[in-house]
Amino acid sequence: MFYYWLDILGTVAFAISGVMVALEKRLDPFGVAIIAFVTAIGGGTIRDMLLGVQPVTWLINTTFFYVIIGSVLFAVVFRKQLKYLTKSLFLFDTIGIGLYTVVGIEKGLGAQLDPVICVALGTVSACFGGVIRDILCREIPVIFRKEIYATACILGGLSYFLLHYLFPNQGEFIYIASILVVILIRILAVTYHLRLPSLYKDD
Amino acid sequence: MFYYWLDILGTVAFAISGVMVALEKRLDPFGVAIIAFVTAIGGGTIRDMLLGVQPVTWLINTTFFYVIIGSVLFAVVFRKQLKYLTKSLFLFDTIGIGLYTVVGIEKGLGAQLDPVICVALGTVSACFGGVIRDILCREIPVIFRKEIYATACILGGLSYFLLHYLFPNQGEFIYIASILVVILIRILAVTYHLRLPSLYKDD
Amino acid sequence: MFYYWLDILGTVAFAISGVMVALEKRLDPFGVAIIAFVTAIGGGTIRDMLLGVQPVTWLINTTFFYVIIGSVLFAVVFRKQLKYLTKSLFLFDTIGIGLYTVVGIEKGLGAQLDPVICVALGTVSACFGGVIRDILCREIPVIFRKEIYATACILGGLSYFLLHYLFPNQGEFIYIASILVVILIRILAVTYHLRLPSLYKDD
Repeated sequence: MFYYWLDILGTVAFAISGVMVALEKRLDPFGVAIIAFVTAIGGGTIRDMLLGVQPVTWLINTTFFYVIIGSVLFAVVFRKQLKYLTKSLFLFDTIGIGLYTVVGIEKGLGAQLDPVICVALGTVSACFGGVIRDILCREIPVIFRKEIYATACILGGLSYFLLHYLFPNQGEFIYIASILVVILIRILAVTYHLRLPSLYKDD
Repeated sequence: MFYYWLDILGTVAFAISGVMVALEKRLDPFGVAIIAFVTAIGGGTIRDMLLGVQPVTWLINTTFFYVIIGSVLFAVVFRKQLKYLTKSLFLFDTIGIGLYTVVGIEKGLGAQLDPVICVALGTVSACFGGVIRDILCREIPVIFRKEIYATACILGGLSYFLLHYLFPNQGEFIYIASILVVILIRILAVTYHLRLPSLYKDD
Repeated sequence: MFYYWLDILGTVAFAISGVMVALEKRLDPFGVAIIAFVTAIGGGTIRDMLLGVQPVTWLINTTFFYVIIGSVLFAVVFRKQLKYLTKSLFLFDTIGIGLYTVVGIEKGLGAQLDPVICVALGTVSACFGGVIRDILCREIPVIFRKEIYATACILGGLSYFLLHYLFPNQGEFIYIASILVVILIRILAVTYHLRLPSLYKDD
């Protein structure tokens, strides 16, 4: 139940981030809705299809559909209040990847996968909605931007298992702490322009 | 049986539309065949994978494979007769999205999905073959072009349920009417340059 | 067992080819790892999802994960020894498509698919890891480059069935011979700039 709400919240965050990118690209209202939809359900859909959880969640649970429609209307109506588009995009995208990393890990554990694979699955769930969004909008895929992105998901995922080891039976605390690790690393990375060390001499 | 034929017809239409785009891009014969194949089966494959209908249709029913090969040969041989490439592309693509919208809705109903989700599934089936085609060909994805596109699928899908309500037990009539709604809206949209209202002041 | 090893070898070859493309694109270490991962498991993942073999192989067998990580480390550390990046990329990519074509055909036969569909499935498995790699890196998808590429997979796939007809019960010999057919055709195509005949008068 608790992580069902995380899933909904992640959907809202990603839908809004999709609207932000689509507005920057000046798409028509329906293009905006499609990008929001694809961003919000893309990562979870790939996750479900990899696991064989089908029909995928949003097909059988209409809540996701209405949540996305609602988020799109909200984001379009209040787009002037969300003045600093870039900052809003960053914020909602970051919340989205934090939530989806942990939801993906949970679903992987539910399918009895190895922890290392759960982290990979969480990272894929978190990042690939944004990757599809960027490919459709002909942007450089978000995972290749200079500041640490997928690395934040991986570190958050590892902290999930570390916390489980240190504090067994503290489910909800661990969820929230791992989500915050992802968000915090991402904010620090963007604020201080943290990058991974370069592989190239002349950088 | 009836909508099996719709599925075949949609496959032919999309395969030919794929050939048209690939010829414009001056791909080699095999590139043309691949684009035709991906366009024709892309939307249906995503639909089947979302629903968990696997192995997907074209893997177990070889008819689709031979229909696509036949359509490619036809379209390549008669490409001079199909002189007005752009118009042919428009025509076949439009027939394709009309047919696939209704086939997708039918499959969604068969999996007992909510009507609103069936419309979304039909729209995805109809549009994403073309989206994959355009991404591979490095074109702007068809759903973002200015004239109404996915909107036509959605309106056709809604009319499907409206007609079902008005004329219960008229299966085949409703199929054909809904397909014609999609096609008609799309033709009107392109003829009269109908667009959705803009979200941007300076448009 | 034998073709499990082919699968592993194909994964190594594709992972290294992914590293090569990513280094050319000057991605950061994590971007390099992601491209390697996606290239190595992309084709097989699509194959498994089309067939309904889920959870897909790399989720339940961690060997693939560690093999990819190992290949990435190897390729990054020895990237100076792999001086001629373009040639190395070509070599590893070619080995990868040879192996994956045959593994895909085998899996198709295991699911009792028609031979012609098995060849299509093998070709998709072999080519689409590279296609996803190129889309993410914003390169022209590999299947559309001028020299024969997917055609090599198809001819190798056909030779698999021809050899089966000529030499029944020679499993491993046939695997290896078909793989070599793919690799040989590809090498000849690139060496002698072999292309399919053009569809366009002014070429």
